[in-house]
Amino acid sequence: MARLIEELRKLPGIGAKSAQRLAFHILRSSAEDAGALAEAVQELKAKLRLCSVCNNITDVDPCHYCTSATRNHRLVCVVEEPTSIESVERTRGYNGVYHVLHGTLSPLHGVGPEHLRTENLSARASRDEFDEVILATSPTLEGEATASYLVDLLRSAPKTGTLRLTRIATGIPAGSDIEYADEVSMARAMEGRREL
Amino acid sequence: MARLIEELRKLPGIGAKSAQRLAFHILRSSAEDAGALAEAVQELKAKLRLCSVCNNITDVDPCHYCTSATRNHRLVCVVEEPTSIESVERTRGYNGVYHVLHGTLSPLHGVGPEHLRTENLSARASRDEFDEVILATSPTLEGEATASYLVDLLRSAPKTGTLRLTRIATGIPAGSDIEYADEVSMARAMEGRREL
Repeated sequence: MARLIEELRKLPGIGAKSAQRLAFHILRSSAEDAGALAEAVQELKAKLRLCSVCNNITDVDPCHYCTSATRNHRLVCVVEEPTSIESVERTRGYNGVYHVLHGTLSPLHGVGPEHLRTENLSARASRDEFDEVILATSPTLEGEATASYLVDLLRSAPKTGTLRLTRIATGIPAGSDIEYADEVSMARAMEGRREL
Repeated sequence: MARLIEELRKLPGIGAKSAQRLAFHILRSSAEDAGALAEAVQELKAKLRLCSVCNNITDVDPCHYCTSATRNHRLVCVVEEPTSIESVERTRGYNGVYHVLHGTLSPLHGVGPEHLRTENLSARASRDEFDEVILATSPTLEGEATASYLVDLLRSAPKTGTLRLTRIATGIPAGSDIEYADEVSMARAMEGRREL
């Protein structure tokens, strides 16, 4: 029991009290339910892995984005997390492939460039596999720092001189009134204005 | 008393109950306070007017933006309401002048082009007074429709062939994670990506 509580406490957002409550719940549940939970945890680690091309979470390697015959493999969208792919897919307007960093630079939390998965990205860029790299990290402090780092990394890689590097637009969210915009977003919306 | 309640009810957000409460409050307050309120209402209408150049609310005509010696008068930012000017000014990055439409196109609410104050804008554009017109209406349905209407209006005006028309950027708000972005803003952020 103490061992299970100990293991549950390692999960994010689970403190000592919650871990105890979860452990008692598992104790009271049927052997079947407990077995199913244990099996699901093991299966997750056994079956899911990171795509060796783009670092997305997948059950087949390479993942289905990287092997898709209908996608443009010369256009890549760099995102922070596997869940960010969903944000881009929901737009139904993107037909390129992805690269997942699994994090953003955050010196305050001890996350440096060595913690980001960038090797396979710069390797692909160096092999001239891309026409355009879209840096789709969030417009947060960490996301902007990460985008700047990637610009330096990709510009300094061999054979990437003519590679187009682009950054997603920061501005007023669609459907929102400019009166409710914070000043940074408003400033970015003015700076990033486009020709009509 | 009934007449005051009637007049107060015409104010936005004031119903019968609130109007009655306000009227009783005024009845109980000192003659001095009541007089000051009446005077303030009259003074507002007597002293404030719309700038004849840009339609901003002002106590001197033309307003202080339109007569400023330090502003670029060949760059104009078109906004929906006088309060929108504040949103742009807060960015501390804009040094042009303004044009206030006093509304947005909204066929559902019976607001057509004839209700927007555009005559002095197209007249100034025709006199070649501008290098660039920034359309800073909100990225809402009404704001976008208004921006499209203004593009047609300004493009068709005489002598505006080389006028730069620009639109503020729609996208992810600064400091926000792309996981929380709605799909329209995400789509606009991808479409509006800029070269680095």
